[in-house]
Amino acid sequence: MSYTLREIVARLGGEAVGDSARPLKGVATLDSAGPEDLAFLTNPRYRSKLAGTRAGAVILGPGDRDAATIPCIVSDNPYAYYARAVALFNPEIAARPGVHPSAVIEAGAVVDPGAEVGPHAVIGAEARIGAGARIGAGSIVGERATIGAHTRLYAGVTIYHGCSVGERCVLHSGAVIGSDGFGMAREGGRWIKIPQVGAVRIGDDVEIGANTCVDRGALDDTIIEDGVKIDNLVQIAHNCVIGAHTVIAGCAGISGSVTIGRNCMLGGGMATVGHISVCDNVAISAYTLVTKSITKPGTYTAGMPFMPHAQWLKNAVHLRHLDRIARRVREEESPGEDRERNDD
Amino acid sequence: MSYTLREIVARLGGEAVGDSARPLKGVATLDSAGPEDLAFLTNPRYRSKLAGTRAGAVILGPGDRDAATIPCIVSDNPYAYYARAVALFNPEIAARPGVHPSAVIEAGAVVDPGAEVGPHAVIGAEARIGAGARIGAGSIVGERATIGAHTRLYAGVTIYHGCSVGERCVLHSGAVIGSDGFGMAREGGRWIKIPQVGAVRIGDDVEIGANTCVDRGALDDTIIEDGVKIDNLVQIAHNCVIGAHTVIAGCAGISGSVTIGRNCMLGGGMATVGHISVCDNVAISAYTLVTKSITKPGTYTAGMPFMPHAQWLKNAVHLRHLDRIARRVREEESPGEDRERNDD
Amino acid sequence: MSYTLREIVARLGGEAVGDSARPLKGVATLDSAGPEDLAFLTNPRYRSKLAGTRAGAVILGPGDRDAATIPCIVSDNPYAYYARAVALFNPEIAARPGVHPSAVIEAGAVVDPGAEVGPHAVIGAEARIGAGARIGAGSIVGERATIGAHTRLYAGVTIYHGCSVGERCVLHSGAVIGSDGFGMAREGGRWIKIPQVGAVRIGDDVEIGANTCVDRGALDDTIIEDGVKIDNLVQIAHNCVIGAHTVIAGCAGISGSVTIGRNCMLGGGMATVGHISVCDNVAISAYTLVTKSITKPGTYTAGMPFMPHAQWLKNAVHLRHLDRIARRVREEESPGEDRERNDD
Repeated sequence: MSYTLREIVARLGGEAVGDSARPLKGVATLDSAGPEDLAFLTNPRYRSKLAGTRAGAVILGPGDRDAATIPCIVSDNPYAYYARAVALFNPEIAARPGVHPSAVIEAGAVVDPGAEVGPHAVIGAEARIGAGARIGAGSIVGERATIGAHTRLYAGVTIYHGCSVGERCVLHSGAVIGSDGFGMAREGGRWIKIPQVGAVRIGDDVEIGANTCVDRGALDDTIIEDGVKIDNLVQIAHNCVIGAHTVIAGCAGISGSVTIGRNCMLGGGMATVGHISVCDNVAISAYTLVTKSITKPGTYTAGMPFMPHAQWLKNAVHLRHLDRIARRVREEESPGEDRERNDD
Repeated sequence: MSYTLREIVARLGGEAVGDSARPLKGVATLDSAGPEDLAFLTNPRYRSKLAGTRAGAVILGPGDRDAATIPCIVSDNPYAYYARAVALFNPEIAARPGVHPSAVIEAGAVVDPGAEVGPHAVIGAEARIGAGARIGAGSIVGERATIGAHTRLYAGVTIYHGCSVGERCVLHSGAVIGSDGFGMAREGGRWIKIPQVGAVRIGDDVEIGANTCVDRGALDDTIIEDGVKIDNLVQIAHNCVIGAHTVIAGCAGISGSVTIGRNCMLGGGMATVGHISVCDNVAISAYTLVTKSITKPGTYTAGMPFMPHAQWLKNAVHLRHLDRIARRVREEESPGEDRERNDD
Repeated sequence: MSYTLREIVARLGGEAVGDSARPLKGVATLDSAGPEDLAFLTNPRYRSKLAGTRAGAVILGPGDRDAATIPCIVSDNPYAYYARAVALFNPEIAARPGVHPSAVIEAGAVVDPGAEVGPHAVIGAEARIGAGARIGAGSIVGERATIGAHTRLYAGVTIYHGCSVGERCVLHSGAVIGSDGFGMAREGGRWIKIPQVGAVRIGDDVEIGANTCVDRGALDDTIIEDGVKIDNLVQIAHNCVIGAHTVIAGCAGISGSVTIGRNCMLGGGMATVGHISVCDNVAISAYTLVTKSITKPGTYTAGMPFMPHAQWLKNAVHLRHLDRIARRVREEESPGEDRERNDD
């Protein structure tokens, strides 16, 4: 598949500068690109690579147009343009309608004729698979669960009974949607299970990574709003609400009954305690444990700097007795200082 | 399904107060409940919701009985009562005895006639599936593994060869029981594998969450005792012993040859180093790394408070040089202080 | 299966000391061993157990030979010898060549006649399965993916299209190789997906743990070099390069475009930010977040000591205001101190 600069711009917008008749066959990094590749400059740190690239053309922003000595596409949002260019050169393979002979479709399940159900998949009783959806090999859609149009489950995805997934979603292998929230009550020295009778509701254009878990609610549902993007090995506990267009990086863990606002960015390995809320437009740094609600947009961080082990040994011991150090530096507690310490 | 307050109390105990003939159809939160719902008050923080609830009745403790203006069920343990009420209104669907035609049962496997084996499940050679057990779609029970009576494996659970699971357990999708412990030895600049020839033994009434891993032992077995409850995405390394009725929240990681006592509560994302032991009745806070054995019951914590990023930047830099700060505040090391610093 | 000390030494090397005609039937710990077991002493901490062991013989190093009162095998590397002894007494079951009738082999896939493909496995179009490879029940090998000779996929492993796995690898249940890297671009208040058109290339003699994820690259491939050993529930993001013979313990998370050198040891739950590199021969302690490149071999650590909760409460509050404490102990900033603080 091959496009000229002109043909690309006709489809994706932007401004072609230089020889726009050159045929291009794919996207590559500035370092790896050859004369038939379209490269991209989206990080100023790499501007120096423009000089040496062998790329046939490069996507860049208005501020870099004068630096290019090869044909280029000028875009106000070069990174998004790069995303669309990769999609242009690597079109999604459409669903191949039909149900594999080895798949099991249980009584009352409705599979759209335009959907694709792969080998060894199981579609549970009264489940619904929408138009153009693709259910990968070995994936399991539980009773009464619904999968929206053009949603793709890769191989080995599990959707528990009664859950719903919207349109144009992508769920990667090993994702588990609708397992029981972790609910139990103490009685007589044992834990008794609290049955989890809510479900999971996932909106449109959501992406969920490999081996990520989203638990069903205890009574009400766990909700993932439109446009949310979740990476691999993430835990979303029961009765969370994840706001639209929020992204959650790998290995994060959101405890029960937490509400995350819209357009948040939750860093890798971050976590929250339960029953708090985070407002819109909050970024949480990697590996940060959020222990109370956040009401102001901004970036929040916790964490220790890493250092050579010998240096850490010398320093960490004092972490046990900061109170003693603090007392020595402060002759008396002033009310003003107490107030300051509490406002966070 | 509908029960009156009187019928509920007849089955579950407690004391009905007020109109006990009202038919109820389910359990709901105080906020969501309608006139046919049974709500519950288990957290004093929500007592104010009693006034505005539309619930038909409410479960509560003796201290709250006077606050209720609607019929109620008074119980000494309202949270456990709530659990049992949800179970009453949402009875477990019993196993539908039989083996799905697409399931594979290998030579010498014994499946109780009352067990249910779902589509595409695989029961390995000489494995045993007990009375009333339910093996979900695509689950794999390895050679010589045993699944006890009334235990439920949801879809896509993997039990490796030779492992045993007790009675009335629940294992969620993606759980992996009996994968190799992480054992290797250094030889000639490479790592050679130490075959892991132990197994995993899981007791009765254990619940294991989605995508949780419990590794088989190197020589002896890895043991999960009766009544343990483990959340999602937890790692239990080889040769651990997890004591009865301990709960482990999501994303926790227990290293090899660790013994955890009975009735412990391990918080989300906590972890331990290997070859330590934790006594009974210990609670570990979320995200806390336990680096040595614990011999006294109580709660243990490590962690940095989170804060706005700018504040963290100002503070974190000093974490590299606490030893310098400590030296400045202390003119000389007293032997007494050294002793104090060491006892933990 | 039974071997005498002499027969073991003939196969595995080392020096037999004492009665080398005693038949031994397995390997066991010093504590558990009986007269037909071969035990091992590899940790000086356990030397005292030699006196009381009932083992038939013991593997140990030259420095311990005089402490043994039972027959022994003296080896310069007793721990590696123990690994090989376990393998000797517990030989790997060879592949049983053939494709299970329930497995699905798609058009153009090539399965070596000596390979074993288990029940309900799916081998995608034009995939290649090498000699002596074993594909476990329900495992999925995607289109055009290749699995090298003698590699073993346990049950429920997923290999996405176009990925390659070398020879003599072991992949445990739930491992996902080649899911999309977490790439997206912001446009008009939403995230648009960046298609990930690279793949994953895994070398020879690699072991990957249960439920571990290795993402495919955005354009170039994600690379796991020969001899790497990765534990359970680990996340390897797109475009990482993991150097040969590096080990990564459970629950670790490596962000995108990170290069890890050879012979590194990454502790449980450690993590890195993206776009950094770590040189050869680096050890990272458990739960340490690496926030910038490491250019010198050695051990690196971050972390808070854990302590009884009441003590943590008293200390943690000061973590919010270390800058204030630091200012009080330092009358003025000297340029020398600033330089010292920055070199790490």
